[in-house]
Amino acid sequence: MVNALPTIGFCGLGAMGGGMACNLAKEGFPIQGFDVYPPSMDKLVAAGGTSSKSPAEAAKGKEFLILMVVNDKQADSVLFDGGAIEAMDKGKTVMLCSTVPPVYLKTLREHIDSVGRSDLKLLDCPVSGGSIRAAAGTLSIFSSGPDEDLDHADVVLKAMSDPLYRIKGGISMGQVAKMCHQHQAATNIIMASEAMGLAAAVGLNTQEVYDKVCKSIGRSWMFENRGPHMLANDYHTVHSATTIILKDATIVTNHAKSAFFPLPLENMAEQLYIQGCHAGFAKDDDAGLCRMFMPSPTLVGELTTSAATTEGKYGVTVDDIINLMAGVELASTRECMAFAKFVGLDLELLLDIINKGAGASNTYEKTASAMVKAGLVNFKPIADAAEIRDKLEASIKKTEAFHQYLPMSSAALQELNYYL
Amino acid sequence: MVNALPTIGFCGLGAMGGGMACNLAKEGFPIQGFDVYPPSMDKLVAAGGTSSKSPAEAAKGKEFLILMVVNDKQADSVLFDGGAIEAMDKGKTVMLCSTVPPVYLKTLREHIDSVGRSDLKLLDCPVSGGSIRAAAGTLSIFSSGPDEDLDHADVVLKAMSDPLYRIKGGISMGQVAKMCHQHQAATNIIMASEAMGLAAAVGLNTQEVYDKVCKSIGRSWMFENRGPHMLANDYHTVHSATTIILKDATIVTNHAKSAFFPLPLENMAEQLYIQGCHAGFAKDDDAGLCRMFMPSPTLVGELTTSAATTEGKYGVTVDDIINLMAGVELASTRECMAFAKFVGLDLELLLDIINKGAGASNTYEKTASAMVKAGLVNFKPIADAAEIRDKLEASIKKTEAFHQYLPMSSAALQELNYYL
Repeated sequence: MVNALPTIGFCGLGAMGGGMACNLAKEGFPIQGFDVYPPSMDKLVAAGGTSSKSPAEAAKGKEFLILMVVNDKQADSVLFDGGAIEAMDKGKTVMLCSTVPPVYLKTLREHIDSVGRSDLKLLDCPVSGGSIRAAAGTLSIFSSGPDEDLDHADVVLKAMSDPLYRIKGGISMGQVAKMCHQHQAATNIIMASEAMGLAAAVGLNTQEVYDKVCKSIGRSWMFENRGPHMLANDYHTVHSATTIILKDATIVTNHAKSAFFPLPLENMAEQLYIQGCHAGFAKDDDAGLCRMFMPSPTLVGELTTSAATTEGKYGVTVDDIINLMAGVELASTRECMAFAKFVGLDLELLLDIINKGAGASNTYEKTASAMVKAGLVNFKPIADAAEIRDKLEASIKKTEAFHQYLPMSSAALQELNYYL
Repeated sequence: MVNALPTIGFCGLGAMGGGMACNLAKEGFPIQGFDVYPPSMDKLVAAGGTSSKSPAEAAKGKEFLILMVVNDKQADSVLFDGGAIEAMDKGKTVMLCSTVPPVYLKTLREHIDSVGRSDLKLLDCPVSGGSIRAAAGTLSIFSSGPDEDLDHADVVLKAMSDPLYRIKGGISMGQVAKMCHQHQAATNIIMASEAMGLAAAVGLNTQEVYDKVCKSIGRSWMFENRGPHMLANDYHTVHSATTIILKDATIVTNHAKSAFFPLPLENMAEQLYIQGCHAGFAKDDDAGLCRMFMPSPTLVGELTTSAATTEGKYGVTVDDIINLMAGVELASTRECMAFAKFVGLDLELLLDIINKGAGASNTYEKTASAMVKAGLVNFKPIADAAEIRDKLEASIKKTEAFHQYLPMSSAALQELNYYL
């Protein structure tokens, strides 16, 4: 059995982990899974893997133990309470794929060492891309850890990912890369709702708005992705629950806070997710947050069919929607890049990560690369920054007559006022 | 020795604790203090107390052990690492006067119990009022705990306070009351800077602005208190450092976040304190944050002498400053009252606490009492809420031409748009 694929234990077989594990089984890896919900293990068995009765059983005798649990608490629970660490053979690898606070990786390394298992390898490999790419083995993976340990894990990482990033600086830097990406994801998701909510509130044809924004400088990956769910009033088919992006946003804001780094726009986004949860939308798809930006619980889709105007009430047009989105994305890009520099991330690599990821936006692509080229994480390299700000301001002003709720647009304008 | 005053151990003799301890000594309480900084103990000795070499020594044989340390970490350090809990006699009282997260009180009670000291009483008694009132024994104290234990501690609490509040619901509710008060303190402190920064930026006579605002509906206790420091450019005489109010704001935002309760305005205030720390103002008096709201590092005081206009540039007048302050205070009042209701605080008591405390404002006094009277923590009982919002909006609009940084005013306007 020369070059046989390494054995894998896999804990956490949810929407993401289940797809990842089944893909590994299909790729021929000997894989044993564990999940507290037995039906999740049945799927893995159907895909060619085996199930287990405990994290310890899944970990025992494996070359790799992969964790795709919800958060750091669950990781502790699997590894220590669940006996996985104790069960592992000498020198084997724990690969954490969950998104957790970067600081947790260091705590976890110390914890593993403190129970006498400094022989175990630990890799920090958060992922991005959603459940479809998880099942296809084409996730973005942000891997970090000792180079030789990453080399050792290469065959597993490659089977799960495309693209596979290797982030320098040791464990926690994979999480730092994911965190910076999620900064953009979090501002773009809620801004998609704010924009579509405004379109609906002024009676614009929301399908037309969607199509035009997607071809404009205001376009973001999240707007493009979430828009159709809004247009279809499809909030209960949950592609990604509000609580998921809230959890990620909180990782960003807490990390920044602990270092006294200001992120007003990201904090506003986080507050809006909390406001959405408080309003009862926690378990719905995050696209459902567009309801917060409508004067009454009007559904976007209903307006689509009846409205056929190119100019909405109060003179608001699709160009105003685009101005708001571009303005928010400009402010968000500076905040993201300044934060990424502050936390020591390779900015060129981040460009690549975000441009190819769910945090992408046309404004980010254009302005972040100008910042990197100039070596300045501020607005100096952005020739038209003041113009974008002025357009944002003018479009906000149009909505004052009817008191439209524009928290992201307003916070972005203030941030542009401060930093420009 | 009938009715002799009880013995006290006192840990944490900083600006607040030092004054509190010296006052207790002067009042005749046998008191032994501990601080890591020996000169702080010398002051207590001069006032009639004694010093000690460790928290354990200060705690030993005393009826009460009072803690006035910086945060929960220091409290743990004094009580457990410092041996104070172990040194205490059976059935004696630990009185925590520091401001800490409410949830810490429950953790602390469990921690004390887990080391076999469930015999010890624990009281939750955060304070408010600053170092002058600490030394005078006239602090506001928010006491909570078992009634019989509070009765037992009454002679000590009364010697330190005026007014003394007893908050129902057991330990942690004292902190909850303080937290709700600090919600207002945190929004009002930064709003004072935003207001004075605007006044300076448009060339208004800032002394005149100060005098007029203090007599208006826009007046807050914090504006009245911090204004003179701003007018004197007195940022390095530190009455209260930026980091102090930041710490308190973070207790508020974290508590709300953990319960998915939205506080966008408080979170914006917190971000501005972080922005101030990031800009280098962390150790200065929080009044120095007005520098963030000026186009260049102009000092307010310099403008005072030269400016004698009643109308500033771009037509901005003192009435605009008042409109911004009243609008922010209205939004902040609703946020505070809704949060206080959510966390189960007696709202009538909170009215009294805030109106007599540093979180007071004319708008709070007027609108919060209307909310309590109507039994509604929203804008329905505020007849002129829409008018206040419209004035806020009109005054923000005046500043658009010169892109004044108005993050609190803008966030408040959005919050009014959402909730009105």
